[in-house]
Amino acid sequence: MTNTGGPDVRKKDLRRPTIGVFDSGVGGLTVLRALVHHIPDADYLYFGDTARLPYGSKSAATVAHYAVGAIHHLQEQGAELLVIACNTATALALDDIRAASRVEVIGVVEPGANAASSASRSRRVVVIGTDATISSHAYRRALEARNVAVKEKACPLLVPLVEEGWIDHPVTEQVARIYLDEAFSADAREADVLVLGCTHYPLLKPLLRRIAPSHVTIVDSAESTAHDVARQLQIHPLPPSQEAERRVAPRLKFFATDSAEKFKKMGTRFLGLPVEDVLHVDLKE
Amino acid sequence: MTNTGGPDVRKKDLRRPTIGVFDSGVGGLTVLRALVHHIPDADYLYFGDTARLPYGSKSAATVAHYAVGAIHHLQEQGAELLVIACNTATALALDDIRAASRVEVIGVVEPGANAASSASRSRRVVVIGTDATISSHAYRRALEARNVAVKEKACPLLVPLVEEGWIDHPVTEQVARIYLDEAFSADAREADVLVLGCTHYPLLKPLLRRIAPSHVTIVDSAESTAHDVARQLQIHPLPPSQEAERRVAPRLKFFATDSAEKFKKMGTRFLGLPVEDVLHVDLKE
Repeated sequence: MTNTGGPDVRKKDLRRPTIGVFDSGVGGLTVLRALVHHIPDADYLYFGDTARLPYGSKSAATVAHYAVGAIHHLQEQGAELLVIACNTATALALDDIRAASRVEVIGVVEPGANAASSASRSRRVVVIGTDATISSHAYRRALEARNVAVKEKACPLLVPLVEEGWIDHPVTEQVARIYLDEAFSADAREADVLVLGCTHYPLLKPLLRRIAPSHVTIVDSAESTAHDVARQLQIHPLPPSQEAERRVAPRLKFFATDSAEKFKKMGTRFLGLPVEDVLHVDLKE
Repeated sequence: MTNTGGPDVRKKDLRRPTIGVFDSGVGGLTVLRALVHHIPDADYLYFGDTARLPYGSKSAATVAHYAVGAIHHLQEQGAELLVIACNTATALALDDIRAASRVEVIGVVEPGANAASSASRSRRVVVIGTDATISSHAYRRALEARNVAVKEKACPLLVPLVEEGWIDHPVTEQVARIYLDEAFSADAREADVLVLGCTHYPLLKPLLRRIAPSHVTIVDSAESTAHDVARQLQIHPLPPSQEAERRVAPRLKFFATDSAEKFKKMGTRFLGLPVEDVLHVDLKE
């Protein structure tokens, strides 16, 4: 990986990578959370395009344009590897983002599809996500290419429920039951994997684990993506016995296109760590 | 009201007004629904800025800029009176919109506040709305100016529940109960009016009527706005006995900045009438 960033970056220890993470909002912080867990010895730059979300209702050309602006900013700040932690941007614009980037780009769909394919014996999986992700059929394409049959189910209420903070609330459980009953019905009864195809859903994993059929493996795209990034960087996870000995904390820096205060407040819940160093950035349309 | 529209407009019967209705999406169609009910003998132009919603997360300057672009389009199409059927745009940008308009502009907040003030004996009311509307305190300001004490309560899950089509669903009832219990607690126990400060909520009126305290009057801003427009145009409602004799159907034309198909599909539910004549428009940033 070549490094053409600023002088600060050139001076730094090359074994400690600078990883840029991009999302339309705070949801991608669950991907950052998984990255920090698996690769603590790194610097992270997170870009949340909070002023222009949601991307789901926008055209592919507009999403590509926004995403390319954001990843250029991350590269100017020194990112040596880019993670597109946004299902919509990955589904609609990954090729355009790759073409515009001078560093490696990893999206969330392929790692999730790989993990699901590895985990499924019945070769049938269920994918849940937002309307936009499900309508894009990005997971369907990726999984069918791996000879896995797919039932896709949009669950539009789960994001607002997570954003309301009702992570383990009876209403959320009732809503998730309705969605999963429908998802695992008819030809999907034999499905043995549930792919969480939305960056908000990892926060619901304990609840979903409780109500999904017991034989079903849950694949969390955020976790799968962090594994792929570690593999890409040839970083091997520490054995649990050595985890306590970690000396070097990850360094985190955040950029948001909407209010930095709002980002801090909402972000801490998604990251599971304090969100402190937030800069507001204005990108030209 | 002067008419500076195109030749089509100049030739038409001046007693049949052309009313422009603007919203960030489909929610404002509940205002159009009330307008059509009270003023059927009119032509309506509806503009939904569906590609750039939600306005709630955007700055006042951006919202004003978008809204002014939309109302210019409505005026070019012949609108002789403008209704801002969007709580966020009314709250953040009504003055800018008025300054940029050459015809009369009516927002949704003042009519709702007037109706609430008229209906309240205890001089205490509860206002529910989206996060953005509640944070703007537009209803609080309007009501306090009328010597009415206000309890504001954001109900962020109600819009996604309506958009999911769960208008009369047990989950929606449970969520609404949680919100209203909190809204009518403590110092708001004496409140005798509930203002629906969001254009999506009229669809929930039967459900909210069932669960709100029985002494509470529900004020629907969409209805109140339609009354104000009728008053402005000096149109008096037909007595119910003559309603059946109405010969002239309203003419409806729609403009959407996102997909026309999506607008038709979602819009019909909000309008309660078929949404047919939809044109896609692209507004320059």
